[in-house]
Amino acid sequence: MSCKQMGKQSICFKNPPVISGAASIVGEKEGEGPYGEYFDKIETDPKVGGETWEEAEGKLQEEAASMAIRHAGITKKDIRYMVAGDLLGQLMASSFGLAEMDIPLFGVYGACSTMGESLGIAAMIVDGGFAEHVVAITSSHFASAEKQFRFPLGYGNQRPKAATWTVTGSGAVVLSRSVRKEEILEKEQISSRARAEKGKVKVKGITTGKIVDYGVKDNMNMGACMAPAAGEVIVQNLVDFGYKPEYYDKIITGDLGKVGKDILIDFVEAKGYDIRKQYMDCGIEIYGEEQNVQAGGSGCGCSAVMLTGYILKMLERGEWNRVLFVPTGALLSQVSFNEGNSVPGIAHGVVLERF
Amino acid sequence: MSCKQMGKQSICFKNPPVISGAASIVGEKEGEGPYGEYFDKIETDPKVGGETWEEAEGKLQEEAASMAIRHAGITKKDIRYMVAGDLLGQLMASSFGLAEMDIPLFGVYGACSTMGESLGIAAMIVDGGFAEHVVAITSSHFASAEKQFRFPLGYGNQRPKAATWTVTGSGAVVLSRSVRKEEILEKEQISSRARAEKGKVKVKGITTGKIVDYGVKDNMNMGACMAPAAGEVIVQNLVDFGYKPEYYDKIITGDLGKVGKDILIDFVEAKGYDIRKQYMDCGIEIYGEEQNVQAGGSGCGCSAVMLTGYILKMLERGEWNRVLFVPTGALLSQVSFNEGNSVPGIAHGVVLERF
Repeated sequence: MSCKQMGKQSICFKNPPVISGAASIVGEKEGEGPYGEYFDKIETDPKVGGETWEEAEGKLQEEAASMAIRHAGITKKDIRYMVAGDLLGQLMASSFGLAEMDIPLFGVYGACSTMGESLGIAAMIVDGGFAEHVVAITSSHFASAEKQFRFPLGYGNQRPKAATWTVTGSGAVVLSRSVRKEEILEKEQISSRARAEKGKVKVKGITTGKIVDYGVKDNMNMGACMAPAAGEVIVQNLVDFGYKPEYYDKIITGDLGKVGKDILIDFVEAKGYDIRKQYMDCGIEIYGEEQNVQAGGSGCGCSAVMLTGYILKMLERGEWNRVLFVPTGALLSQVSFNEGNSVPGIAHGVVLERF
Repeated sequence: MSCKQMGKQSICFKNPPVISGAASIVGEKEGEGPYGEYFDKIETDPKVGGETWEEAEGKLQEEAASMAIRHAGITKKDIRYMVAGDLLGQLMASSFGLAEMDIPLFGVYGACSTMGESLGIAAMIVDGGFAEHVVAITSSHFASAEKQFRFPLGYGNQRPKAATWTVTGSGAVVLSRSVRKEEILEKEQISSRARAEKGKVKVKGITTGKIVDYGVKDNMNMGACMAPAAGEVIVQNLVDFGYKPEYYDKIITGDLGKVGKDILIDFVEAKGYDIRKQYMDCGIEIYGEEQNVQAGGSGCGCSAVMLTGYILKMLERGEWNRVLFVPTGALLSQVSFNEGNSVPGIAHGVVLERF
């Protein structure tokens, strides 16, 4: 089904960029979860051979990026830009982890929605004709995130039921230029490149989110902070593209967790859409019930590794054909929390389709 | 002079986006400096009516964005995206300051190079045909930056000669779609819109920087950290576009300061280019000798307010016709500094021309 060229908050790409390579690397706990077999690499050293948690997270990014580029069958010299981000202050994991890549870099921050933001910008760069290949990448690390946002690990604080567990991992995607419609028409035949793209997953479109603030102040209940932002983006996506929820095989949020899920379902229902059948949340899925993670997984690595480890594989295999991927972010910092601010949410939708 | 379509790290836009509006707001100290008369607004309340330094910085962004949109003669409903960033952990000034704008947001971070990054992404979005109008904006605030990166203000620490003073201010630019070459050809006449663009400043191209790490570890000497990154981007810009330094009326870095300036001039000279005649640094310019700011101004507000307050006005008046604008960033955080890491630099070049 075709989509309208430009909705209010959405873009439907003329020549949807192809996902030509992807890679996921996770920590031991994520490897022990129900999706362990799907991830490309399970790293058992929590410091990844580094000296600090931040360095460890940077190394996860470097490895995920290198692996995704290999999977795309190209080299890092072929990558024109990286669009990268993480949760740490001043994007320390990206800034240090990707320094050796020697590739022009756009640093991005959208809290745990960052994978949606980086994919959106990367897709515009490729569809706009500015690059052949762009890497979109994000990461998070349980220990660096606890240090950044919550308590020292040694303090051993109790975690309320609504709290989530930051995923240790990084996911990277190589977005590549697809065959242009005009090229195909000129040649009056499907080129070999077009044949090679058959069955590949493409970024068909994006729906970019706004900051949504419902005044929730609980940094241990980020699902509640983010659910309205996710709800607004999902509804706007359906409106802009003229789709019903049934169009998608799956509508997948980043890390709303169990509390956020219920709020989202209700929010979307109040706008006239029932997404119960399609709905899935990376944060709820990534850990097993027995793994003691309260409301689920979170962090911008959560949706990134579920995308690159599981979702893209399900699309490539033809188990699913159309997915609305909606990473969700809670915009807070240590400082904003200590100053008593609310935690606004943001979410970015990415339409992934098997062609 | 035309430029090559795609250099190694550069883009020459097919239909260069027009700067249809811009605005600068600065603090009292910046208002008292040699460029005081150029800034659109001088805010004498350091907290901008807010309760915290972070809130103050957010309010600067909100005001700069609103003013730039007014200057473009449009309303915030006409803006399709904002590309925004600041220096604070988790982009607190943008996340809170721009929440009320109700516009889809891409948060970006490139330390003090962020204005170059946000202009680059915004220009690609507009030239790529994804938006009519996009706002690129950044800010910094002396007090929020000192709190984030250095010492509590009340501690009254001494500042070494190589240290810079973070500029309090925000600069916003509205980038708008220009008349497309193909449209003009079809109509066989210059449309009224093209006439309206005559004499306007456009983003002709960009050169996107990589992370450059020469191992400098001194967070009180960020000019030295950033100079090689600026040098590499300037040289790459000249190579990619096939220009000599004389092509530009000015080559303007963000905040290298007095120490960084000398390193840059030498760095570029070693590569075969003499930029002494064209060179200017926003950080050196923004404060007067008597203002006791050591090596100069810094912060992503520094290049942003000099761009929107002074540089664009000089271009619009025809005093200059071609400027290479190179905001420069030092990629450090409190955590990376305390862990003994070096301070890598990054810089992004933007080619501004009067058409």
